[in-house]
Amino acid sequence: MVLGETFVLWFVPAAAVVGILFALIQWFIVSRVSVGSEGKGNNGYVHVEEDGISDLEVVAKCAEIQAAISEGAESFLATEYQYLLIFMSIFSVIIFVFLSSVGGFNLERVPCEYDTTQECPSTVAYAFFTTVAFILGALTSTLSGYLGMKIATYANARTTLEARRSVGRAFIVAFRSGSVMGFLLAANGLLVLFLTILVFKLFFKDDWVGLYEAITGYGLGGSSVALFGRVGGGIYTKAADVGADLVGKIEQNIPEDDPRNPAVIADNVGDNVGDIAGMGADLFGSFAESTCAALVVSSISSFGADRNFVAMSFPLIISAAGIFVCLLTTLVATDLFVISGVKQIEPTLKYQLVISTVLMTGAIFLVSWYALPETFTINVVGHEPKVVKNWHIFLCVGSGLWAGLIIGFVTEYFTSNTYQPVQDVADACRTGAATNIIFGLALGYKSVIIPVFAIAAAIYLSFSLAAMYGIAVAALGMLSTLATGLAIDAYGPISDNAGGIAEMAGMSHEVRERTDALDAAGNTTAAIGKGFAIGSAALVSLALFGAYVSRAGIAVVDVIQPKEFVGLLVGAMLPYWFSAMTMKSVGKAALAMVEEVRRQFRTISGLMEGTAKPDYKRCVEISTDASIKEMIPPGALVMLTPIIVGTLFGVETLAGLLAGALVSGVQIAISASNTGGAWDNAKKYIEAGRSEHARTLGPKGSDAHKAAVIGDTVGDPLKDTSGPSLNILIKLMAVESLVFAPFFAANGGWLFRL
Amino acid sequence: MVLGETFVLWFVPAAAVVGILFALIQWFIVSRVSVGSEGKGNNGYVHVEEDGISDLEVVAKCAEIQAAISEGAESFLATEYQYLLIFMSIFSVIIFVFLSSVGGFNLERVPCEYDTTQECPSTVAYAFFTTVAFILGALTSTLSGYLGMKIATYANARTTLEARRSVGRAFIVAFRSGSVMGFLLAANGLLVLFLTILVFKLFFKDDWVGLYEAITGYGLGGSSVALFGRVGGGIYTKAADVGADLVGKIEQNIPEDDPRNPAVIADNVGDNVGDIAGMGADLFGSFAESTCAALVVSSISSFGADRNFVAMSFPLIISAAGIFVCLLTTLVATDLFVISGVKQIEPTLKYQLVISTVLMTGAIFLVSWYALPETFTINVVGHEPKVVKNWHIFLCVGSGLWAGLIIGFVTEYFTSNTYQPVQDVADACRTGAATNIIFGLALGYKSVIIPVFAIAAAIYLSFSLAAMYGIAVAALGMLSTLATGLAIDAYGPISDNAGGIAEMAGMSHEVRERTDALDAAGNTTAAIGKGFAIGSAALVSLALFGAYVSRAGIAVVDVIQPKEFVGLLVGAMLPYWFSAMTMKSVGKAALAMVEEVRRQFRTISGLMEGTAKPDYKRCVEISTDASIKEMIPPGALVMLTPIIVGTLFGVETLAGLLAGALVSGVQIAISASNTGGAWDNAKKYIEAGRSEHARTLGPKGSDAHKAAVIGDTVGDPLKDTSGPSLNILIKLMAVESLVFAPFFAANGGWLFRL
Repeated sequence: MVLGETFVLWFVPAAAVVGILFALIQWFIVSRVSVGSEGKGNNGYVHVEEDGISDLEVVAKCAEIQAAISEGAESFLATEYQYLLIFMSIFSVIIFVFLSSVGGFNLERVPCEYDTTQECPSTVAYAFFTTVAFILGALTSTLSGYLGMKIATYANARTTLEARRSVGRAFIVAFRSGSVMGFLLAANGLLVLFLTILVFKLFFKDDWVGLYEAITGYGLGGSSVALFGRVGGGIYTKAADVGADLVGKIEQNIPEDDPRNPAVIADNVGDNVGDIAGMGADLFGSFAESTCAALVVSSISSFGADRNFVAMSFPLIISAAGIFVCLLTTLVATDLFVISGVKQIEPTLKYQLVISTVLMTGAIFLVSWYALPETFTINVVGHEPKVVKNWHIFLCVGSGLWAGLIIGFVTEYFTSNTYQPVQDVADACRTGAATNIIFGLALGYKSVIIPVFAIAAAIYLSFSLAAMYGIAVAALGMLSTLATGLAIDAYGPISDNAGGIAEMAGMSHEVRERTDALDAAGNTTAAIGKGFAIGSAALVSLALFGAYVSRAGIAVVDVIQPKEFVGLLVGAMLPYWFSAMTMKSVGKAALAMVEEVRRQFRTISGLMEGTAKPDYKRCVEISTDASIKEMIPPGALVMLTPIIVGTLFGVETLAGLLAGALVSGVQIAISASNTGGAWDNAKKYIEAGRSEHARTLGPKGSDAHKAAVIGDTVGDPLKDTSGPSLNILIKLMAVESLVFAPFFAANGGWLFRL
Repeated sequence: MVLGETFVLWFVPAAAVVGILFALIQWFIVSRVSVGSEGKGNNGYVHVEEDGISDLEVVAKCAEIQAAISEGAESFLATEYQYLLIFMSIFSVIIFVFLSSVGGFNLERVPCEYDTTQECPSTVAYAFFTTVAFILGALTSTLSGYLGMKIATYANARTTLEARRSVGRAFIVAFRSGSVMGFLLAANGLLVLFLTILVFKLFFKDDWVGLYEAITGYGLGGSSVALFGRVGGGIYTKAADVGADLVGKIEQNIPEDDPRNPAVIADNVGDNVGDIAGMGADLFGSFAESTCAALVVSSISSFGADRNFVAMSFPLIISAAGIFVCLLTTLVATDLFVISGVKQIEPTLKYQLVISTVLMTGAIFLVSWYALPETFTINVVGHEPKVVKNWHIFLCVGSGLWAGLIIGFVTEYFTSNTYQPVQDVADACRTGAATNIIFGLALGYKSVIIPVFAIAAAIYLSFSLAAMYGIAVAALGMLSTLATGLAIDAYGPISDNAGGIAEMAGMSHEVRERTDALDAAGNTTAAIGKGFAIGSAALVSLALFGAYVSRAGIAVVDVIQPKEFVGLLVGAMLPYWFSAMTMKSVGKAALAMVEEVRRQFRTISGLMEGTAKPDYKRCVEISTDASIKEMIPPGALVMLTPIIVGTLFGVETLAGLLAGALVSGVQIAISASNTGGAWDNAKKYIEAGRSEHARTLGPKGSDAHKAAVIGDTVGDPLKDTSGPSLNILIKLMAVESLVFAPFFAANGGWLFRL
């Protein structure tokens, strides 16, 4: 290693600041597309009348819809934040009290573990800092989610307007806006974490173990917000979507995104609060947790004992380097190769992944070489310390990074309608909805195989080379290109919204086709994003699990012991319980929405004729209330299980439970996302009718298409609620266990002691 | 303990012989209902003309249909047995060669492990006996399945004929026939196993460890046949069912079991080969494996070292006692309380479970008290020997027994249409097939919770009290009332067939209603039977896993080690891979059937008008060929995975893999069975229209009913193929690992050695 402390102190915040500036520049460029009646020359678009609707009317209409969506999203987030505030307050107290109780609420400084001649902060002080880190993590995540939502609702109408000029221009607007979200989130997360460490350092001084253990609160905070974002947002978006479809498409026979449908705004709001704010919070949580896990483990390594600040900051340097890599990658899409046709959309997005992965591999090599000692050791509870070389760590980080790419490509193969699997599912629609469902479920199950092997290979390699530190940095590797991943991901819902706005504003068929093409590519990238999210969640959970085991002082998690095996079995059941809850929640919330939409169609006269406006707001309220109410049981399951199991059954059963939930949850999450994605695209495949085969199944309204619509509706809660929510289940339980580990180790398992 | 060796030598075979005699008596009673033109007074049935069809014509017609079904089933089994023979021959060679290779194919006797001054059989001799046990297990299972099928196809038409007189008489015929199957299988299995032990003893002498290790081949043989029965039979039955429904109900609009449908005989054959022969082989496998696992562990206990024959025979005595208990239980239904109305069917079957469980609890107490030493120890590799009291073992066996009952009742709650869950699913049909599917999937996920807690509690208790011996006897406890469980289970498909025959023979509406009522109860008991099967499979697999770990000399299976964790993760994926294969297989086989049925409707003129007969045989052939061909990939996955993983990655990774497959497979198996059962009964609920609520959803042909039919079709492969096949996956991989453990321990893991 050759880098000095000064380098770290400058490089990490510099990367974060550059990331934030880059995001602001992108935002500025997007903002130059004007929306509304300010009349700044109508973006250079030549004034024409389309279908008898004046162009200015269209722009005004877009502005109006955008405002309604933005307002709806804000109102949901405002409600969500109220509940979040209550939850955070209560949970902050719980953390503080539980952790303080470990040392008997003693305020006196205690002898340090690493050097008993020195004094370290009291357990109360330590509990206090953990709580502060928890609050900071939660605030950062909330801020990132909020900003993401603001940008997305700012960009959707602009994308629609640009789609009038060309598909390339519309793509750039959507993609730039996605990158604003990606860079803000990655850079903010890094900056706040780094500053927190520096401030905590003033108090903790040389007690790096204590400092980094307190920092785990940051991960817990980020993940708790993700619970609200993913689960609440997931229920919201699908309640609105399913509710709108059930009445609109099936009962009233009006197209999707028809402005006469009272739930249409709620549906578009859902894309923003679920897929943008929810996904952002989820990935932010993964980033925060994997960094925390790596920091905790590094504090008990030989360079932790040497107080080697540069080496300990390795995870932060990797993330900082990632911001630069993603910046270069983004420029390729926005400036170097500007797309000109519909066919280039999907490849351009895919190249983003490949380019960022290749560049990042080089960056990881450099950082591993220059930031880490050539050889060092990682402590492993109950075993010999593990001797590690710096190039081992390069392999660990790299294996995570490339496993992510493999997962991305496999997900694409199983969910894009350019390949055989989705076409087979579409073909099964020929014999009805039942065969469509059977083939779709089988596809989801099958799609698990390669991702699991990829994750297993990455785990085996990193685990063997560098124990739990290897796993933590492998997770970081997968997340190192977070800004690009998020940009691609956020691009999807923005395009989806753009299409909705085009439909609602009554734009021409040509514009609609362009936004549809943008949206179709977005569907696949959304599936890829979900693949990344679950892949990283698996690695992160394992890293947190490792950190938990180490912190709880468990030497072996032996599954041929009753306590551990029972934990394993029940843990493997939890994802099913959780999924049952979230799926039922969507069903119930959707039914509430159906009632309201029916009521409006019944009571508002002139609604179907388009002479009266529906009450969009009421639907937004219904969706908001239902989603918040319905997320309580699954949320409670996630938050309470580790506390109950740890307290009553002790650290070993909890270890088994975490392992079981992890290995079982990964499978359901991947299969649910891919099954849902495949059904969605099978429907789109029939609708688009681009091949001979597709045309034999279509057109819209044919029996095969009806069967495909049923599959799509079943897939909605699977791919957007129950599947992705499982990431939160496995990560949050793990990080919570890690934070409470000292408490469980000291006071847990009292049921067995009886 | 007070029992002597003589007692065991008489009691166990006596119980088996009594069981066989009892089965024969039941068969004799059933045979007195005459079918065909022998004209033995037409069973006392008063001769009337119904719907213009003479009564004698009806009887002749029944005989004809019965013959066709019986012939179809025999032809399937004959084909299956050909492949089975090839498979068994190859696998016998593999077992013999692999196990002989451990000792370098040395024919000389070796010093005994327990006493190096004595000589024990050579590894080649040991490999030979294992192979012989394997063949015996396979033959016994084959025989039991074949006899079960014979009885079922013998009883179906008789049940139909008795239904003309009263529902009570029909019930008794179906139930008696089921008990023939139950008792023959339980008694045969016990007798062959006992005699094998006695014969092997002549050679092995005091080497109980070697003897019981060789006996594990018996379990492997039984389970291998179950693979063919469950997977092949499962694909057969659903290919025929789905194929018949897709063309018959949907395209040609003719009712279920209409004789004009060419696939109707294949469908009825399927009930016999899938639900009777397949389920029988599955449960026989569980019985054989749990007994073998208990015997292997008991040979390394303190009473094994003392060569205490009575205590070592404890598992056999329990099973023998179970035969007597089940005999008494059966008499309650057939002689003590004879049912008189439709409403009593389901309670009578349920009481069978309760009565046998209560009586068995007493029997277990007596056997534990009199057959086991008051205190003994069980050896645990790498740990202190476990000190166990005889009443501990009573609790272990009892916990398995009662966990089985709980699973049965929970399954009933979630799949019977007298309770809320199925009614909710039916209600979801109101908003279409999509909500039906979503609610059904959520129901299946939810139904996992209590069974898993019940299994976990039984495991925790037995594991803590008596280590792996406790688990093995808990599994035995769950299976101790096997004869009754199987009788109830086999009752279902017999009634199902009886209904089909009534329809095809053109019997009156009244008779059809009676057989429908019998069938509806059979649906619920089938679900309960599946619950038992998976519950016992979970316990058996764990017991086998424990025996494997002990035999492979693994002291800990530490999932925070790379090898084990990777095994765990990949193992948890296997059930998904396997399910994807089996579901896809059903889909493909069903499509082959659809083609054939369509061809016949197209080419045979007068088929729809009923003037020409369809070619039933061709459909039976199609289903047979497709199912045998389609079972190869999933079969290969199950059989090859342990061998490949054990050889390449070693015993630790294999241990992780088995644990992962077990904890993940249990969940999918339970949820798949219950989801499918619930959809089936939701459809039946709407069709029957017995409540106000049900009538608002119906009648047959309403939109809600159509949605329910889609759910039912999706559920078919889930509940009858992919779900129950998972039992085989987890059991067979575990028993195969156990048999090959010495080979893996000696030669395994060469990939890591590189």
